[in-house]
Amino acid sequence: METSGYLSNSFDGLHSNDEDDDEMVDIAGATLDFSSSDDVPPLCSGDFDEFSSRRVSMNGHGPSQMVDPLDDPLPGVGTYEDFNTIDWVREKSKDRDRHREITHKSRESTVALLLRISDAFSGWLLMLLVGLMAGALAGGIDIAAHWLTDMKEGVCLNGFWFNHEHCCWTSSEPTFQERDRCPQWQSWAELFSGTSTGALAYSLNYLMYILWALLFSFLAVTLVRAFAPYACGSGIPEIKTILSGFIIRGYLGKWTLITKTITLVLAVSSGLSLGKEGPLVHVACCCANILCHLFTKYRKNEAKRREVLSAAAAVGVSVAFGAPIGGVLFSLEEVSYYFPLKTLWRSFFAALVAAFTLRSINPFGNSRLVLFYVEFHAPWHLVELAPFILLGIFGGLWGALFIRANIAWCRIREFLLLFVLLSDPLVSGLRRLTLAVCAAGKTTRLGHYSVVEVVLVTGLTALLAFPNSYTRMSGSELISELFNDCTLLDSSQLCGYKQLPNISDTGVGNTLGDRPAGEALYTALWQLALALLFKMMITVITFGMKVPSGLFIPSMAIGAIAGRLLGVAMEQLAYYNHDSLIFKGWCSQGADCITPGLYAMVGAAACLGGVTRMTVSLVVIMFELTGGLEYIVPLMAATMTSKWVADAFGREGIYEAHIRLNGYPFLEPKEEFEQSSLAVDVMRPRRADPALATLTQDGMNVGEVEALVESTHYSGFPVVVSQESQRLVGFVLRRDLLISIDNARKRQEGVVSASQVVFTEHTPPLPPEAPPPLRLRGIVDLSPFTVTDHTAMDITVDIFRKLGLRQCLVTHNVSEHTHTHTHRLRHKLNMT
Amino acid sequence: METSGYLSNSFDGLHSNDEDDDEMVDIAGATLDFSSSDDVPPLCSGDFDEFSSRRVSMNGHGPSQMVDPLDDPLPGVGTYEDFNTIDWVREKSKDRDRHREITHKSRESTVALLLRISDAFSGWLLMLLVGLMAGALAGGIDIAAHWLTDMKEGVCLNGFWFNHEHCCWTSSEPTFQERDRCPQWQSWAELFSGTSTGALAYSLNYLMYILWALLFSFLAVTLVRAFAPYACGSGIPEIKTILSGFIIRGYLGKWTLITKTITLVLAVSSGLSLGKEGPLVHVACCCANILCHLFTKYRKNEAKRREVLSAAAAVGVSVAFGAPIGGVLFSLEEVSYYFPLKTLWRSFFAALVAAFTLRSINPFGNSRLVLFYVEFHAPWHLVELAPFILLGIFGGLWGALFIRANIAWCRIREFLLLFVLLSDPLVSGLRRLTLAVCAAGKTTRLGHYSVVEVVLVTGLTALLAFPNSYTRMSGSELISELFNDCTLLDSSQLCGYKQLPNISDTGVGNTLGDRPAGEALYTALWQLALALLFKMMITVITFGMKVPSGLFIPSMAIGAIAGRLLGVAMEQLAYYNHDSLIFKGWCSQGADCITPGLYAMVGAAACLGGVTRMTVSLVVIMFELTGGLEYIVPLMAATMTSKWVADAFGREGIYEAHIRLNGYPFLEPKEEFEQSSLAVDVMRPRRADPALATLTQDGMNVGEVEALVESTHYSGFPVVVSQESQRLVGFVLRRDLLISIDNARKRQEGVVSASQVVFTEHTPPLPPEAPPPLRLRGIVDLSPFTVTDHTAMDITVDIFRKLGLRQCLVTHNVSEHTHTHTHRLRHKLNMT
Repeated sequence: METSGYLSNSFDGLHSNDEDDDEMVDIAGATLDFSSSDDVPPLCSGDFDEFSSRRVSMNGHGPSQMVDPLDDPLPGVGTYEDFNTIDWVREKSKDRDRHREITHKSRESTVALLLRISDAFSGWLLMLLVGLMAGALAGGIDIAAHWLTDMKEGVCLNGFWFNHEHCCWTSSEPTFQERDRCPQWQSWAELFSGTSTGALAYSLNYLMYILWALLFSFLAVTLVRAFAPYACGSGIPEIKTILSGFIIRGYLGKWTLITKTITLVLAVSSGLSLGKEGPLVHVACCCANILCHLFTKYRKNEAKRREVLSAAAAVGVSVAFGAPIGGVLFSLEEVSYYFPLKTLWRSFFAALVAAFTLRSINPFGNSRLVLFYVEFHAPWHLVELAPFILLGIFGGLWGALFIRANIAWCRIREFLLLFVLLSDPLVSGLRRLTLAVCAAGKTTRLGHYSVVEVVLVTGLTALLAFPNSYTRMSGSELISELFNDCTLLDSSQLCGYKQLPNISDTGVGNTLGDRPAGEALYTALWQLALALLFKMMITVITFGMKVPSGLFIPSMAIGAIAGRLLGVAMEQLAYYNHDSLIFKGWCSQGADCITPGLYAMVGAAACLGGVTRMTVSLVVIMFELTGGLEYIVPLMAATMTSKWVADAFGREGIYEAHIRLNGYPFLEPKEEFEQSSLAVDVMRPRRADPALATLTQDGMNVGEVEALVESTHYSGFPVVVSQESQRLVGFVLRRDLLISIDNARKRQEGVVSASQVVFTEHTPPLPPEAPPPLRLRGIVDLSPFTVTDHTAMDITVDIFRKLGLRQCLVTHNVSEHTHTHTHRLRHKLNMT
Repeated sequence: METSGYLSNSFDGLHSNDEDDDEMVDIAGATLDFSSSDDVPPLCSGDFDEFSSRRVSMNGHGPSQMVDPLDDPLPGVGTYEDFNTIDWVREKSKDRDRHREITHKSRESTVALLLRISDAFSGWLLMLLVGLMAGALAGGIDIAAHWLTDMKEGVCLNGFWFNHEHCCWTSSEPTFQERDRCPQWQSWAELFSGTSTGALAYSLNYLMYILWALLFSFLAVTLVRAFAPYACGSGIPEIKTILSGFIIRGYLGKWTLITKTITLVLAVSSGLSLGKEGPLVHVACCCANILCHLFTKYRKNEAKRREVLSAAAAVGVSVAFGAPIGGVLFSLEEVSYYFPLKTLWRSFFAALVAAFTLRSINPFGNSRLVLFYVEFHAPWHLVELAPFILLGIFGGLWGALFIRANIAWCRIREFLLLFVLLSDPLVSGLRRLTLAVCAAGKTTRLGHYSVVEVVLVTGLTALLAFPNSYTRMSGSELISELFNDCTLLDSSQLCGYKQLPNISDTGVGNTLGDRPAGEALYTALWQLALALLFKMMITVITFGMKVPSGLFIPSMAIGAIAGRLLGVAMEQLAYYNHDSLIFKGWCSQGADCITPGLYAMVGAAACLGGVTRMTVSLVVIMFELTGGLEYIVPLMAATMTSKWVADAFGREGIYEAHIRLNGYPFLEPKEEFEQSSLAVDVMRPRRADPALATLTQDGMNVGEVEALVESTHYSGFPVVVSQESQRLVGFVLRRDLLISIDNARKRQEGVVSASQVVFTEHTPPLPPEAPPPLRLRGIVDLSPFTVTDHTAMDITVDIFRKLGLRQCLVTHNVSEHTHTHTHRLRHKLNMT
């Protein structure tokens, strides 16, 4: 019989009263005054006022009310602040209302019907535009990067804007190798010293290579710093976060787009160990976001816009690899949060449009859609699954190691920056402190020091990369060469096999049998081994710098090198031991048993899988590169092994790790709770905390509400019938509340601090001398999501994930009371 | 101030009391007696009894209580009845508990750790087994169907178990056509009359063809009738329903599997206009369901089993078309309801295993994975998009028409059966009435008449199909021939072009230019046109008969014929008008401008798309058949047009239409509400209805509960604190309640009708002479899903869809009361 609990506002869920009669006085006292404060109008009585019509109106919007922000929405009400989470349910129901209204109107006039049709097709039009724009940009980036990369080596005399291949296009040399050395194209040594061989020429080329690299990277990081700090990095972690419902203003804006496009070209050309795949996803999303502004449907609705962004992510991968299906699956598997079937179909459309736009631009000059076109001729054998799985293990280990090393490096970077800052004598006192705090939290704005870092890393990369031909070439060229199957005429070092006398037996070059390795191949293998070590180290420190940097190409390069090494080793093993137990039966002498290129491909998939934890999409992308279903099984075996091995060391992929590093709120769909707990265990306030901040439906005045809002940091408040009874009426968002009060104070006459705030449908009778009340029922969400305090946390989290909630109220149903607790699970609370 | 509302138990949500003080007496009266009836124990007091420990125990299971079914589950509690819906949330949280328990135990001993690892990999093992089994079965079905189909034409003298191709395998004839006529293979005419030409031979062959067809179909329908009525039809509508959470016992059982496998072979061989793709999905799902019994994890959990079934659906399409990626997307797009990422990856694995099993069985003898392997050589031109879109329109119109006609026919069939039944003089009085009622509802058991129907339709099909060579061949052979690109040496009628003198210009046969049509081609076109009409009509009446019947092949055949006709027309148009405005520029004389085979493929995709409304998966399946990304654009244009056109006539695909026809409960994910309404508008009871059936937590005895359960048909009851206050405590399922009471009456001493049923944690003090109470807290779901009555129906339906709820309670929060209303939205209520 403890009445004090209610009177003292202790809303401890575990403590409750056993009796109901104690509160009678309070309830009576609280409600007798407001006899018409019910939120449901008495149906049969005649006193329907203007408010009651809202219940029966078509869209839940009644006739316009000056003080009712829902009917005549105030600017700002219903929007979100930066670094906040959207409410998927609200956005989706907004869109449904809009759609219903259009459907309804379209029955009235032809113009409205046309509007409805154009509305229905605007999604497709938008997809078309996104595909075209992203495809065109990707083509431009490819061409420019190709040109600038060649610029590091030399210049075209016909015009500096030609790249090497283009420059020698018209050359009449017979073979491709010869044509590469056409007179119009001059290396820097040739241009400056007149000779292309010798130590001087080598040093000159070396120097120019480093200088260009430094210039490009300096330009890239400076541009990023000056125009769009958000343009740095891969962008995929942030896009994942945005797609899950977070708002980062400007992250997908036009400045980011322009800056990222230009700096991506520069960063790729500078020879840093980075790729353009991740940033292309970012670029495609920027395009989509900007194009969304053309259509009201998408401009005004955060949830609809995220559907478009999901499709744009597919477009990005589609243009990066020329793999539309793989791109769609990438978006589905890796990036997206909410991916309805409609989006699947539209993504596919956009990805195809983009791929064909890219192909018609033809940046690689071979009218191939794909980045690395490979064609294998020999089948693989069951025994080879063992080395493939070995590659999977390597990929998994590398993935786990890379993630740890990279995250550790990013933390070291923060501390280094902090240290530099603190020891800088120019930074004094207060400013030093603010900067230090800022650095500890986020390093984005510490541009000055990141420039130094980028330039240093570029210098190191260029210095070490030039001497080794496999590191000097760009990442995609390297992968392309490693994937390649040796033909008879191939002059690459990797195909430096000994020519056998009986070579004519096997006929056409393509079905070449295994041959013993020659001198050139052994040299190549050494170089590759060194390149592997170099790439592994430099990639760790490169990813996360303040330039656009993708991770696909470096990861794939590492895997491809390892795979090729293993492939050649297997090939030689098979050649010299073709009678041994393992090879007997399927590998006769002179037959083409082992395809080292396939090993390179499997290795690339394994490493990329280990780093990103992609599975289906990765296999499909690789399948689209080769076009042969046969090779899916090795790829799958390696990818699966790689994922399992990497998962054993930590379940996070690199993108999730960076999301966590940056502290973005992201509710990982794969994550499971180790311990079972109930909602009652995590909800606030706990017993020791101050009472839950609630608004009463008609008992507070403007001043009190403002005081309550200011004294707390919550993003929303439950509205209850009265402090004593705590019956839940609805939920009001802080932002909406502030905007409405602010607006009312400015525009509505007579609203002062003493004005009563009324969340009910009917204004309660007020004393005659009282100022006019402020009616805010319009901003109350009358159907907030609630769970009981006995609900398991697993289920609660599931509800958050699946419905995309922003908040959920925990009700406590003991005896006669529905205690209301705001349950701010998403996001931070759940993260920690 | 109307108190009568509460006292008379009128729970009308719209009518409510404005005051709270009126009910004080009732509340007090109702609760004063049970002062310790609170469901949360007083934390700081010392009187923790054995029940309170459950709150802190690991899995929500406390120490075993004889009367508490949750701790020592009664057989049956927590399971579902046939034709009921599962509760996804409960199943998933059951699985999470199980998983947590295993994880927890694995820290204790090595055996448990091994168990945990085997548990983790059991999913993969299961997928492997499903893939192997389904692949092997599909291979067997292919071989058997091939053999039986050839049996209609003749027999192999070397052994009747050889099919035509196999029989002539060792034949030494040089060309393929000649080899087809090897002496070992004898048509029935040759065998019986000794001659293979002439009217007699033709008639003999005709007769044998019809007889075999009749025999096969009779066997098929009889077997279905005798052993497994569920084996009929395509199975996809039912599997969709099952995957959405419905239970149809025996639908995926071993008898269904065996019967469906055998009768599918017979039905396909009988020459009926049906395919084996849909039934293969059913067969794969049966395999999966049976194999699930090997693993406790999947046997005991309906939700987990449905994940496996989703993957099995992918396996089915994968073996049907040799398209693993397409299969996975089909499952994702068309069939599945709950498709987490883990399932995506496993489906892909299973689909690949199945595809490779099928390939190693090699039923087509060409070591091709795919059913129709096509390779096109000529590119397509932008102008051709117009005919492609035309094909899309045709496909859409056909799809819409087919669905309407088929559904109408299915209804007519029901009425016909009803008529036959009613006019049958043998069926008398009462029996006639029962049968009629049964027939009106479901025709499944009306086997006798369905046999007649199947035999009649087969006879008609065989009679009409034999004279036309394009209808005589099986559906997949026809499609294969239509997709084929003509080469120079092709002897098929469809390639009966006039030989041009300058043919040697273009060199190798593959890059053949357009040629004028010859006599043979014109004949072929006439035959095709007739075949088109025949197929269109016969497919409408075939689909839905009581034999296994897929729809993919007939739909594709219709589209392929239409496409090929249009393709040849375009080709001739281009040939004769290559200087006209349209063709000028891209189609010079003698060039290979138009590929009629591509038109056939596009037409097939369009028709299949129109009928099933598949999009992405269809395009990907077709892409996997051709392997060329180039041809995706035409396919996509046609599929998209087809879907839009068909959707304009009705948004349902054939499977949804059959789901609705059969009255299965299925919450269509695409469906949207036309009108906006609130939960309060649909919930029961309405004002005129009797009061909501609720249980009170401690105020009822066993007899009252039983009476309540018997007087209603609801599948569950809300538990409230008391009838007067209607505070929600939890939710009890009818089945669990009945089982528990039944069990208690049998086993527990002293439980009689007067025993009080207690849903609270603590037993309220009872009079000393009262019988011992029946405690049923264990079966109460303490965290039922609730929405407020102001929640929009859109959102409510969304919650149902996304969380897979079985029921949701609608609470009414007006003034001081949480009225509780069972809201049986899912499924029936929502359907009507």
